[in-house]
Amino acid sequence: MHPKGWLFFRIMIYNDPQLAHTLQVILEFLGTFAFAISGIRHAAQKHFDWFGGYVCGFAVAIGGGTIRDSMLGVRPFWMTDIMYVLCTALALLLVILSRKWIKRLSNAWFVFDTLGLALFTIAGIQKTLALGHPFWVAIIMGCITGVAGGVIRDVLLNNVPVIFHKEIYAVASVTGGIVYWALFSLGLSLPWVVVITFLTVSIIRFVAVGYHISLPTLHAEDEKK
Amino acid sequence: MHPKGWLFFRIMIYNDPQLAHTLQVILEFLGTFAFAISGIRHAAQKHFDWFGGYVCGFAVAIGGGTIRDSMLGVRPFWMTDIMYVLCTALALLLVILSRKWIKRLSNAWFVFDTLGLALFTIAGIQKTLALGHPFWVAIIMGCITGVAGGVIRDVLLNNVPVIFHKEIYAVASVTGGIVYWALFSLGLSLPWVVVITFLTVSIIRFVAVGYHISLPTLHAEDEKK
Amino acid sequence: MHPKGWLFFRIMIYNDPQLAHTLQVILEFLGTFAFAISGIRHAAQKHFDWFGGYVCGFAVAIGGGTIRDSMLGVRPFWMTDIMYVLCTALALLLVILSRKWIKRLSNAWFVFDTLGLALFTIAGIQKTLALGHPFWVAIIMGCITGVAGGVIRDVLLNNVPVIFHKEIYAVASVTGGIVYWALFSLGLSLPWVVVITFLTVSIIRFVAVGYHISLPTLHAEDEKK
Repeated sequence: MHPKGWLFFRIMIYNDPQLAHTLQVILEFLGTFAFAISGIRHAAQKHFDWFGGYVCGFAVAIGGGTIRDSMLGVRPFWMTDIMYVLCTALALLLVILSRKWIKRLSNAWFVFDTLGLALFTIAGIQKTLALGHPFWVAIIMGCITGVAGGVIRDVLLNNVPVIFHKEIYAVASVTGGIVYWALFSLGLSLPWVVVITFLTVSIIRFVAVGYHISLPTLHAEDEKK
Repeated sequence: MHPKGWLFFRIMIYNDPQLAHTLQVILEFLGTFAFAISGIRHAAQKHFDWFGGYVCGFAVAIGGGTIRDSMLGVRPFWMTDIMYVLCTALALLLVILSRKWIKRLSNAWFVFDTLGLALFTIAGIQKTLALGHPFWVAIIMGCITGVAGGVIRDVLLNNVPVIFHKEIYAVASVTGGIVYWALFSLGLSLPWVVVITFLTVSIIRFVAVGYHISLPTLHAEDEKK
Repeated sequence: MHPKGWLFFRIMIYNDPQLAHTLQVILEFLGTFAFAISGIRHAAQKHFDWFGGYVCGFAVAIGGGTIRDSMLGVRPFWMTDIMYVLCTALALLLVILSRKWIKRLSNAWFVFDTLGLALFTIAGIQKTLALGHPFWVAIIMGCITGVAGGVIRDVLLNNVPVIFHKEIYAVASVTGGIVYWALFSLGLSLPWVVVITFLTVSIIRFVAVGYHISLPTLHAEDEKK
């Protein structure tokens, strides 16, 4: 990354907490929107009706965080902010109005989806730590926050969950969680921990997709090696 | 509806709370029973064994309310009343003893199922409001209470959830929720709000099935419009 | 069972609580391990990647107890002990390193899996009773603890849950629960209640598999009887 980029982050975070907060809100909206779009597009492949599309979009957008909050014993995050409901409705409207436009922007959805994965991973880790759980629980919760919505989507669509046999996705989240833990343990200041974790998750995902890197596959016992 | 019908409701609710309560208990039993029957009949289509049939029936009967209660952070409703466990057992017994009889009564199950949808929607809304949540959360919870059990059934049966691509079902519940909110906001007295919401959900469902009305379908991006 | 076996149990439980605890820890590890192996082997049949295999293994190992704890409103048991995470990792490592070895030990996994079913059933019952719920809730929770993980596995693999249409499995757990309740109500001392319940669940499972006993199947309504 260009040195000016680092400078930008540094100024932003240390000198302007308002800007940092605004950036987070924008990222959260883009991530939620991309997650919802992902659910609705998959639903369209199976000819779901509008309601089915909405539910799939909403499930991707809020599913991971809801499972996390349920395990942590706190109120699901989306129940206190109508943004997630409206954001999914907006995504459904766009898919209904212009399939072509949605398709043409595929790369944008991919980028937003990745930023969402990174952001939701960090949000999951921080919420879990704030409730007093150990780091290994936080890493698992970060991963659940980022990826479980997509698993629910695939279950609702009667597909085999794509994150279990395709590109690297969940591993980017888990690696980000380990990086967060390592940097935090080394005493790095929180803004840097967050920024480096965010970049780690995003870069792993971009590189994995760009170079078609995937995890090794398990083999059935009667197969030849 | 015939004026005498309205009169009946009016007398019943204002003059005889005991009768209103009895009616609610009867409706809840019929709804639970119809939901359980629905799960067991679907399980029979896939040649599940008795235990599988029981679990599917129970899942439809209590699944939606259990997800709602889990999100609301309260004890699942069925854990304090053995009625739901016994009602499902009775439904299983009937399906085992007489398939013909069960099939001949298909229309009755459809009516009870619709009454159950209406009742469980209202129950979900009222429980959510009682816990201090805003109305938009209550409408979502009402819908979850009414329809999520059927989604769990379809997931357990490895089917695509039928409410995502067939007749109008969930939309009747959501519309009922909006009607509840509108009438409540207008200051109508609670019994009337409940009765009109109940009729709204039921009538939408009956009309949708009677006239084969369904929601528009989403299309995959490579399809022609 | 040989009289010396009973004597062994009696001495162990009454005279040496430390030994009883050690035995329980060993059984819990073996059961968790066998459950994880079951998830990973099923995932391998569908060519999941390592991450997918891990998630399936973990889901079987902790899924039932997590649903139980979520319904009981307490913190999921695995969040306070890293053993389950590590045990699943060890199982994954073994499956990756030696498919042949895993296959050759199929009988051992079957035995451990059955011991796990018995142990987790009892653990579920006791936890539910300790929280003040009635016995019928405890029996359901015992069954959920023992079998729901396998259902989650099958849902994630996009299979029809095997316990709904194959050998007797859940029924062994429920029967164990009823035996527990009956003996407890008769005033038998707790160690004996536990041991007899444990043997009941295990023996029913062993006999059912050994003699290919299964529950009757439901039939679709248009089939001939």
